[in-house]
Amino acid sequence: MDSKFVIEKGIPFAGRTEVKVLELEPGYVKMMMPLQPNLNHVGTMYAGALFTLAELPGGAIFLSTFDASQFYPLVKGMEIKFLKPAATDITVEVRLDPDEAAKIRETANDVGKADYDWDCELKDANGQVVAVSSNRYQLRRMKPSGA
Amino acid sequence: MDSKFVIEKGIPFAGRTEVKVLELEPGYVKMMMPLQPNLNHVGTMYAGALFTLAELPGGAIFLSTFDASQFYPLVKGMEIKFLKPAATDITVEVRLDPDEAAKIRETANDVGKADYDWDCELKDANGQVVAVSSNRYQLRRMKPSGA
Repeated sequence: MDSKFVIEKGIPFAGRTEVKVLELEPGYVKMMMPLQPNLNHVGTMYAGALFTLAELPGGAIFLSTFDASQFYPLVKGMEIKFLKPAATDITVEVRLDPDEAAKIRETANDVGKADYDWDCELKDANGQVVAVSSNRYQLRRMKPSGA
Repeated sequence: MDSKFVIEKGIPFAGRTEVKVLELEPGYVKMMMPLQPNLNHVGTMYAGALFTLAELPGGAIFLSTFDASQFYPLVKGMEIKFLKPAATDITVEVRLDPDEAAKIRETANDVGKADYDWDCELKDANGQVVAVSSNRYQLRRMKPSGA
């Protein structure tokens, strides 16, 4: 299965939001959360959909950047601030620097796990930042089989 | 429409999670997020469903505690920490003290808005805390019509 499909449909919860992976390469992802299926009671995007858009790049960057046969990711925590009503489709872009990725990989390989984090901005169709988040993840090395 | 229905089905995003309001009264709500429709790729509850369970009590407490013809709530921000894998249905309970609610109502009435916040714990079927969140809301007074 290709990584875009895994991110968009691999978790049924995410699939139901109709979230889209617009671009995906090692160390970079751009995703879009559509407004229509995720409206709240006042006609803007529900907070849970914005959270989901802020969180899913963790899985996307993992799949495009790390070896899924050797490692798996955990989300440790997130802080999200809602700044403006989200009244259009919303996009997010996350970049993970190759040197930083190499360091994370090395640490997880050496000691079994490595914490990493990033901040991201959720933007509406006019480029306005509607929410910001700080995400904390951990890369874990898979145990050798039989261990 | 009764408040339970509004919380469970009023926002389609929430409805799709099959979240349930177990108890609701002024200043108190207990809700449950079922595991099955919200599984992630490793068989535990997806982070976005846990976030949603932590966030929805804001709307539930609003509906049971404040006058929806005079006020409306905003979520300003949330911090959530994922402590353990969530491998069962998950519940949350939130209480808002009547004196605190009266103060919020009074401030929103006087100056148009009032910030309030609470912490909550998400628990699995064995009573284990799987996640904790800090939620920041704001109660806003509706503008008089024509204003």
